Amino acid sequence: MSTHFCAQNLLPVSFADLESAAKRLQGKAFKTPVMTSETVNKQTNSQVFFKCENFQRTGSFKFRGACNALMQLSEAEKQRGVLTFSSGNHAQAIALAGKLLGISTTVVMPADAPKVKQEATRGYGAEIIFYDRAQVSREKLTSRIAEERHLTIIPPYDDTRVIAGQGTAALELIAEVGELDLLLVCCGGGGLLSGCAIAAKTLSPKCKVIGVEPEQADDAARSFRTKTLQTVSNPDTIADGARTPYLGKLTFPLVLHYVDDMATVSEAEIRRTMFFMWERMKIVVEPTGVLAAAALLSGVVQAENARIGVIVSGGNVDFREVYQFFSL
Amino acid sequence: MSTHFCAQNLLPVSFADLESAAKRLQGKAFKTPVMTSETVNKQTNSQVFFKCENFQRTGSFKFRGACNALMQLSEAEKQRGVLTFSSGNHAQAIALAGKLLGISTTVVMPADAPKVKQEATRGYGAEIIFYDRAQVSREKLTSRIAEERHLTIIPPYDDTRVIAGQGTAALELIAEVGELDLLLVCCGGGGLLSGCAIAAKTLSPKCKVIGVEPEQADDAARSFRTKTLQTVSNPDTIADGARTPYLGKLTFPLVLHYVDDMATVSEAEIRRTMFFMWERMKIVVEPTGVLAAAALLSGVVQAENARIGVIVSGGNVDFREVYQFFSL
Repeated sequence: MSTHFCAQNLLPVSFADLESAAKRLQGKAFKTPVMTSETVNKQTNSQVFFKCENFQRTGSFKFRGACNALMQLSEAEKQRGVLTFSSGNHAQAIALAGKLLGISTTVVMPADAPKVKQEATRGYGAEIIFYDRAQVSREKLTSRIAEERHLTIIPPYDDTRVIAGQGTAALELIAEVGELDLLLVCCGGGGLLSGCAIAAKTLSPKCKVIGVEPEQADDAARSFRTKTLQTVSNPDTIADGARTPYLGKLTFPLVLHYVDDMATVSEAEIRRTMFFMWERMKIVVEPTGVLAAAALLSGVVQAENARIGVIVSGGNVDFREVYQFFSL
Repeated sequence: MSTHFCAQNLLPVSFADLESAAKRLQGKAFKTPVMTSETVNKQTNSQVFFKCENFQRTGSFKFRGACNALMQLSEAEKQRGVLTFSSGNHAQAIALAGKLLGISTTVVMPADAPKVKQEATRGYGAEIIFYDRAQVSREKLTSRIAEERHLTIIPPYDDTRVIAGQGTAALELIAEVGELDLLLVCCGGGGLLSGCAIAAKTLSPKCKVIGVEPEQADDAARSFRTKTLQTVSNPDTIADGARTPYLGKLTFPLVLHYVDDMATVSEAEIRRTMFFMWERMKIVVEPTGVLAAAALLSGVVQAENARIGVIVSGGNVDFREVYQFFSL
């Protein structure tokens, strides 16, 4: 698969696709704030720009991809409705985008997804079908339901429209703060990472792009190094958005082409960074949302006198379940 | 005391004092962001502007007052150093302001003040002296230490320089968003409330100003209604910044003169609003910091088609102690 896309002009998503997505999303997605921290700048001896997608609609960058995808459906597809599978944030994003655009939405969700994400998804009017992560392949279940109900599947990351929409986060960041030396992006299925890498390499060609995963779910880092798709199964990480088993057919070649390196962070570093962002920066960021920041603040990725972009991907935390984060 | 100040030109703090404070604080205090929430606007059928002092230096509005006070000391006073008493946020504010201005700082603090506040105060270089809230009058203890060590006392609220500095929060808010119909401000000792009321009544004369207290610590509401100073002793509220026993000699007449009404909110409403701001607005706000928002979101204060300012006073939460907020 990857050889098919090895020439840049054959890659599945282009910068032009991101520009179209940005135009499409105007007035629909929020232009999220860019935050800075004196403490972080001092600690890293750099200028760090946090692109705060936790303030995006539905609490994560996923709304950008979901909305961009739904807006490109045919009228017939819109009338039949859409189906997706998601650990939570993409589900909420599809649900709200569907509500705003008048498209009915159904979501296949693991039964152990955070309650706050379940409630929000239902709150936006989506129908939820639960499954057991340990027993069932969500892709197979999704295909079966889509066929039975004649629904169009909007996958959480391996979709050109989703990737282009998600990449507008970095496009917006660089348009606001200017060129960067380094961009750090968390990586689950690689939609956000590959989309943002396209934006960075186009708008700021010297910018190094690094994807960040939990150590416990390092399939993309291994895939990147071996140039062969590696997988992980139900990894034990609090970063639930990065539990995806593998990069996609579209995102893998994009990551290989546009991303400079992959880094991994420990669960302890994820927790430490999360509490730092809550207690010192005063923003609520979910475990997956702090991955990129954790790579920088832990010293796993090092830079001096650099202009660094950090994508803060989401902020959906169920505080009634917060005790699970106190084990360290 | 209050009769002494009953004519406006005899009131202890004027709008000109706020303007001087604002000038003095330029480049020292942050211009904090104003946030909005579609959910809140829809629920209240109004336009609500949250002035986010949780993003202020040291995590609360207290830095404005502390810095404005320290900058007006004589050279001799600066060299001898300052002393204050505080449940935490004013302490951090004095500590950082002292550090920035090269003034040594000592803080008298209740032994049960949140650990995150103790650590931050020490981190900024202040010396801390602990006392037992149930046993000792902090004012008396403070006077004794000040005398022994030749330190200048900077009180947390009953000080013209502190009040003027704290009032710049509302001055900045109205300068940014324009005139308001209603301004909601939390009330402990009344420094923030009276300072903000001066700003609102000057810049937006038709703006109604309402102070908000916990039901469990409603001394200011009772003082306001009876026009006689009422007290409360060690009230049982999670809003630790509003546990102050009474309004001050300066703040009481200012509150009587400038504030239109006082409202109180239950502990349940404080908790509910706090989780709403954490989970939906994605900002970390401490219990005292949500008082003003709680009055609006609980319906205790009602307004329709109004432009409403809400001061979010601080965001210092010790998440390792967060279980205490789960009892409802």
